[in-house]
Amino acid sequence: MRHKKFPKIPEATIKRLSIYNRILNELSRDGIEVVSSARLSEISGLNAAQIRKDLTYFGEFGVRGVGYFVTHLRDNIKKILGINRQWNLIIIGAGKLGQAILSYGNLKSQGYNIVAAFDNDPSKIGTKIGAYNTPVYPLTKLKEIVRKNTVKIAILTTPAVAAHEVLTMLEEANVEGVINFAPVKLNPSKNIKISYVDLVTEFDKMVFKISSE
Amino acid sequence: MRHKKFPKIPEATIKRLSIYNRILNELSRDGIEVVSSARLSEISGLNAAQIRKDLTYFGEFGVRGVGYFVTHLRDNIKKILGINRQWNLIIIGAGKLGQAILSYGNLKSQGYNIVAAFDNDPSKIGTKIGAYNTPVYPLTKLKEIVRKNTVKIAILTTPAVAAHEVLTMLEEANVEGVINFAPVKLNPSKNIKISYVDLVTEFDKMVFKISSE
Repeated sequence: MRHKKFPKIPEATIKRLSIYNRILNELSRDGIEVVSSARLSEISGLNAAQIRKDLTYFGEFGVRGVGYFVTHLRDNIKKILGINRQWNLIIIGAGKLGQAILSYGNLKSQGYNIVAAFDNDPSKIGTKIGAYNTPVYPLTKLKEIVRKNTVKIAILTTPAVAAHEVLTMLEEANVEGVINFAPVKLNPSKNIKISYVDLVTEFDKMVFKISSE
Repeated sequence: MRHKKFPKIPEATIKRLSIYNRILNELSRDGIEVVSSARLSEISGLNAAQIRKDLTYFGEFGVRGVGYFVTHLRDNIKKILGINRQWNLIIIGAGKLGQAILSYGNLKSQGYNIVAAFDNDPSKIGTKIGAYNTPVYPLTKLKEIVRKNTVKIAILTTPAVAAHEVLTMLEEANVEGVINFAPVKLNPSKNIKISYVDLVTEFDKMVFKISSE
């Protein structure tokens, strides 16, 4: 396995690698071939020494007085993260947030392909939604579509009360990771990874921060 | 100030209060008047003792053998968080992600009103975008619209390379908080709060988690 060499990369480093990858993509699109750690620091707001340290850790040393080769560095980071290939995802919950994520075009250019949406609303099933006309299926089709498209990651955008039941179905379909947008903490019963994203909670935390001064 | 009584609420508690508020909203919509900590625990996946502890901390004891009164508890949590009134927000960057957030209907019902979007693309300026026909302005209008609408929070969805310049403008317009979706760490020069949300980074971290097994 390619990660054997890097057994314990902290989540904070992974997050920075993801950020470098995005910046390198932008630089590459702008036709920039070489970038210094100082310039990466300027764009990212991260410390230049930290950047150099992160990259030497992965065997990237750059060229003294020149910098890093943009596409080479980007491709290596993609390989380390496992995003050097396309990932097929599904989304459970074809409501407003689900549709918003489906319409977020940059996901595709970053290697994420949402192949199907699922909902229990009969008026949505059979329709195509979002900017990429993603088909909406009933949850009874979950196992079949996950298997057919080698889906390992599901995005969960159902209401909180439905999330636990859906999680059980995802476990039964052998999905390996869930990115949970439902405002609820999940208790996975098998070896499934859960991460949490909650826009309203982010907004609430910000309101509290600026209100409590 | 209402927060004088609770000077040091940890961010993890704030996050849970935000989650309780969302669940109580859903229960209230379903016509449920009373809820036990056991039921809140079931829905949220959080420990019932933790929930009771969080709520007594804010003076909520519930009624023994009955539970908490849903709307009463919700209204108190809203007051503590500062979301017992509507907040006017702006969004900088009318690209795909900006449009996705603008179309996320639940924000309005949670008290968040995005009054304007800003972009530097002349083909977008003057149009109305998203599910709520939010007007798009040039950044030269920023100060005026922030002042007129008492905007304290901005959502930043520009490309990474533009984010620092926009931050300076937001500081000059006396915005107090920035929820940053741009994949870049910001270095605010004044007393402005920054929080970070990055969908692709969430996806990348999940891919790494399931790839590195």
